[in-house]
Amino acid sequence: MQNFTYWNPVKIVFGKGTISELTALIPIEKKILMIYGGGSIKKNGVYDQVKKVLSNHTFMEFAGIEPNPLYSTCMEAVNVIKKGEIDFLLAVGGGSVLDATKFIAAAAKFEGKNAWDIATGAEFKSALPLGCVMTLPATGSEMNCHAVISNKITKEKYPISNPNIYPKFSILDPETTFSLPKRQVANGIIDTFIHTIEQYITFDVNTPLQDRQAEAILKTLIDETPKIMAEPVDYNARANFFWCSTQALNDLISCGTVSDWTTHMIGHELTALYGLDHGQTLAILQPRVWINKKQEKSDKLVQYARRVFNITDKDKSNAIDLAISKTEDYFQSLGIKTRLSDYNIDAKEAAEMISQRFAKRETKLGENEQVTPKDVKEILLNS
Amino acid sequence: MQNFTYWNPVKIVFGKGTISELTALIPIEKKILMIYGGGSIKKNGVYDQVKKVLSNHTFMEFAGIEPNPLYSTCMEAVNVIKKGEIDFLLAVGGGSVLDATKFIAAAAKFEGKNAWDIATGAEFKSALPLGCVMTLPATGSEMNCHAVISNKITKEKYPISNPNIYPKFSILDPETTFSLPKRQVANGIIDTFIHTIEQYITFDVNTPLQDRQAEAILKTLIDETPKIMAEPVDYNARANFFWCSTQALNDLISCGTVSDWTTHMIGHELTALYGLDHGQTLAILQPRVWINKKQEKSDKLVQYARRVFNITDKDKSNAIDLAISKTEDYFQSLGIKTRLSDYNIDAKEAAEMISQRFAKRETKLGENEQVTPKDVKEILLNS
Repeated sequence: MQNFTYWNPVKIVFGKGTISELTALIPIEKKILMIYGGGSIKKNGVYDQVKKVLSNHTFMEFAGIEPNPLYSTCMEAVNVIKKGEIDFLLAVGGGSVLDATKFIAAAAKFEGKNAWDIATGAEFKSALPLGCVMTLPATGSEMNCHAVISNKITKEKYPISNPNIYPKFSILDPETTFSLPKRQVANGIIDTFIHTIEQYITFDVNTPLQDRQAEAILKTLIDETPKIMAEPVDYNARANFFWCSTQALNDLISCGTVSDWTTHMIGHELTALYGLDHGQTLAILQPRVWINKKQEKSDKLVQYARRVFNITDKDKSNAIDLAISKTEDYFQSLGIKTRLSDYNIDAKEAAEMISQRFAKRETKLGENEQVTPKDVKEILLNS
Repeated sequence: MQNFTYWNPVKIVFGKGTISELTALIPIEKKILMIYGGGSIKKNGVYDQVKKVLSNHTFMEFAGIEPNPLYSTCMEAVNVIKKGEIDFLLAVGGGSVLDATKFIAAAAKFEGKNAWDIATGAEFKSALPLGCVMTLPATGSEMNCHAVISNKITKEKYPISNPNIYPKFSILDPETTFSLPKRQVANGIIDTFIHTIEQYITFDVNTPLQDRQAEAILKTLIDETPKIMAEPVDYNARANFFWCSTQALNDLISCGTVSDWTTHMIGHELTALYGLDHGQTLAILQPRVWINKKQEKSDKLVQYARRVFNITDKDKSNAIDLAISKTEDYFQSLGIKTRLSDYNIDAKEAAEMISQRFAKRETKLGENEQVTPKDVKEILLNS
């Protein structure tokens, strides 16, 4: 096991009817900016619930955070904050809304000239306090200090990470997910699955507990998927899904291990260039990343085959191939297509453009930093 | 799944050489009381390491915390704190030292007349800040806000729990465990195992992820045990053990579930009355608690049999019996005896005295609150 530091101070408030706890979670003297997206929270009643609960608090609203939230939209919110003397941010919605809110919290306090620098790695030592009502199990953003932010002009999408942007609290009420469209649910399942995979299928550094904790998420997700997809109002299935997605990216399973993130990094480029859903990019890329790095990842892939899919084939290479194919079948069972051509994307063009981007940036991908731009090209050509 | 709130702000600093991080973890202006036990940290070099690292800090020492720490000893430390104007406590040692430090932190700020009231349930709203260098994987105290405290006069042992006594940080360096006596290691393994069991083998409230997270700990522990016991300086085995013990009682696996704690509660009485090691009491009692509540716990016991011990016997009752017997074998493989008679304790006397205590206190035991004083008697008679 490698040395690590783990600190995760997010208060999780989980279950039916927990939006009512907002009153006690945000100090009454705070001036709140409630940040949300395209208005789905107005249709499913969450907006009304939040407004009612906060009726004794002072708050303003900022609507219109888009999926894959844009820097430009975030900066509009920063203006509202500065004019309105806001001192608490409340994200209400899914991962995009919360990621945007995290960026806004940092940008509102950023002392540098250009807040975009935050996305490209500039240090920041403070942020506005924030909390969230999370309505979409997927990104795990509710229990971590990470966010992903996009730039419309440069067509780039960057992850940021900083302990100052941990939410003070996250309210997770599985009932708020009942009205989600099937496509978003399927994307959320894939996102949760791949978050786990990126921290698990690497090289072995002797972390048997973390491995089993990762397998716990994968197996639960696979078991619950038919229930999650079949019946939107199955409370327990939605609750279990929500808790899986939170646990998949609260950095617990990566304690003392090495992480990959190749699939996510290439996926962000596919989204930035072609507008694919994040979940779709992951489903397309993950099998191809494994084929490309089958040798390097073989120990964990065999373990994954044996423990997650109960594959008993003694030939390790066969077991891995079968596990990859079962994983792709699983993604397809969710109604997510797993080839670039299914989305009318020219694999050759994507391979060329994206591998060039990585070559230019000199970003080192993979747990071994051994995924070269040439590998990126091959992965995309195979996709 | 039941509603829950999860908040665990402990910073874990894990790995080789991490004691050196103390310098940065405790603000330089703090006046520290370093609290420790019987001096084993002087033999294994931890004392010297801590002193060296804190050479620029102001600190005093309080030695002599005993196993199953006593209220009277804690109150001596409170006197030192008040006289010395101490404002930070550093526990260096195992769970007893840390539990005592938590109690001391609360008692030093307690506004009521009698600090023993903290043990019997009095509310407290503040405590001195504390951190720890943990040298014994067992209690999980390093990542929770619980402690157990004993009273020499009344021969009682009580658990306390309060968010104000979360450590600010816990340093876990597996190398500090290399010099532990075998008996303490074995006790620590059993403690970790039973912490997990108490939160897992209950009735089913549809928490498949939490179940699998619990099984992850149990299976890892069983797999690592031969390595942990055979070779004191096997770094990875000790690291995996340490991380299992932390994860077993940081309240994560009990999120949204129901917990039992019958074995612990009866075990505390055995320790208070007869001075048995905590681990010994658990190994004696757990099989007998299961026999007593086999019906109520049958779903989870079958799952435990299937998943943890790979028992395939189709007859559920047989599968449970086999799992109970394999569990007892596992405890014995650690060199821990599992019968009261092995410790020259009269089961009849123990059954009488302890069941009367529970009858008097009207404590409700078990996840169903259905473990009656009569059950306690039966469990002890069978032990």
